[in-house]
Amino acid sequence: MPSIIKASGQREQFKQSKLRKSLHRSGATSVQAEEIVTVISQGLREGENTSDIYNRAFHLLRKNRNEIPAARYSLKQAIRELGPTGFPFEKFVGKIFEASGYDVKVGQIMKGTCVSHEMDVVAVKGKEIVLVEAKFRNRSGDDIGVRVPLYMRSRFEDILNNVPKEKRRGYRCMIVTNTRFSVDACKYADCVGNIKLIGWRFPKDNGLEHMIESLGLHPITVLNILSREEKLKFFEKGLVVCQDIDKAPHKLDSLGLSKNKINTVIEQAKELCRLKV
Amino acid sequence: MPSIIKASGQREQFKQSKLRKSLHRSGATSVQAEEIVTVISQGLREGENTSDIYNRAFHLLRKNRNEIPAARYSLKQAIRELGPTGFPFEKFVGKIFEASGYDVKVGQIMKGTCVSHEMDVVAVKGKEIVLVEAKFRNRSGDDIGVRVPLYMRSRFEDILNNVPKEKRRGYRCMIVTNTRFSVDACKYADCVGNIKLIGWRFPKDNGLEHMIESLGLHPITVLNILSREEKLKFFEKGLVVCQDIDKAPHKLDSLGLSKNKINTVIEQAKELCRLKV
Repeated sequence: MPSIIKASGQREQFKQSKLRKSLHRSGATSVQAEEIVTVISQGLREGENTSDIYNRAFHLLRKNRNEIPAARYSLKQAIRELGPTGFPFEKFVGKIFEASGYDVKVGQIMKGTCVSHEMDVVAVKGKEIVLVEAKFRNRSGDDIGVRVPLYMRSRFEDILNNVPKEKRRGYRCMIVTNTRFSVDACKYADCVGNIKLIGWRFPKDNGLEHMIESLGLHPITVLNILSREEKLKFFEKGLVVCQDIDKAPHKLDSLGLSKNKINTVIEQAKELCRLKV
Repeated sequence: MPSIIKASGQREQFKQSKLRKSLHRSGATSVQAEEIVTVISQGLREGENTSDIYNRAFHLLRKNRNEIPAARYSLKQAIRELGPTGFPFEKFVGKIFEASGYDVKVGQIMKGTCVSHEMDVVAVKGKEIVLVEAKFRNRSGDDIGVRVPLYMRSRFEDILNNVPKEKRRGYRCMIVTNTRFSVDACKYADCVGNIKLIGWRFPKDNGLEHMIESLGLHPITVLNILSREEKLKFFEKGLVVCQDIDKAPHKLDSLGLSKNKINTVIEQAKELCRLKV
């Protein structure tokens, strides 16, 4: 098999098993996955980019009229579409906590003993208070480096020092990203012990993509029937995740879409919200 | 007086006293400063940028053939010219410590208990070990925010934890920048106590510009007789501060400058190196 180039710029051998697993994860049947793996492997050129290869696989899934698995397959790209020009990532992270039963505040100022800190997300459930730094990255090769847990640690300490001792036990500190953490970031967070890291497939089998899928919190950017402009209109109406559409389908009437398109959107959204892994 | 716009984007009233002080600091006589302040004040337009106004003042100084004060006047700009495309700022900061009698290493890896950290500058004199983070900024309105002292604190702690207790007392932690620190960065560093901040005119009367002037460590980018290309050639030859030229004037022979220009460069450099405030 030829070697291919990952988003990080590193070369690696193309592995059929990786692509197969990824297709399964997206809901493709074994037969569909096998067909696509065969087609992709035959057309593979030395030094191709991972993203090109995976996009090709994604188009094959769509061609097979598997709109739903195709939509799920592109979840990572859909999260990226929430980026700076769309809906801020911290609000989306807030929605994850809300769906898990927390009271959530976004962009909250927290007093420390030295200075005040703006926390992206503060999530409260009973005596548990989770302080979250949400790090959005546009490019998939961009790791979150060790400086983020380093400054989070000092910030957490400064805030905790301002909390009565008996209440400190409920405080948690977390960094959530749509990309990966550098080796040193993981090593440092692991070593100091009180900073939890959530990234793309990190921790393995319990990362951001798992939270989104298990809560049915797919962002509406996953609906590939919608154009970029239409997605921005949805954001403006407060329709951010598929569940929002499921809860208030009437909000779609004022968006200027055809009756037919509205029906397809609602159908796709319902289907995706029900998909729990 | 009309209001003008600072590098940070904030508006403020134009103050003759500020410009006058700044001209004096650059070595202009009282008569010269007064003349320039008058000309500038008369030509002032509402909403002009501080940098345009100060550039005009600087050109007037040059026009008056005060080459040396003009060169000193542009020290801040000269430091900016050390930036990413020229000579790295951390090496220049290293030179400041060297000139103050320290043994200096740039880009040194320091082991912590959790991870290893790359320190921009490590300066050692006897039992004193100074760990320096050098933050270069290209734009003058760019403050150094609170995250820098926050991550420096955790990093310093991680490194100290790896040092035998009896040796920890000699360790210092410092952040040096060519710009300013945000209010919160100063507040935080002041509050935790063991991080020293050095910036442009910070601390007042003992900032980076003072260190440079008192040590006579003006970078060669201050020599306004040289073009950008010529300055880069100087860097390649290891000629970074005026003192380098003063110590090894023969190095100028291979740079393709005219005899006349070489003489002027040496003259300007000698003059500047001698200027101690």
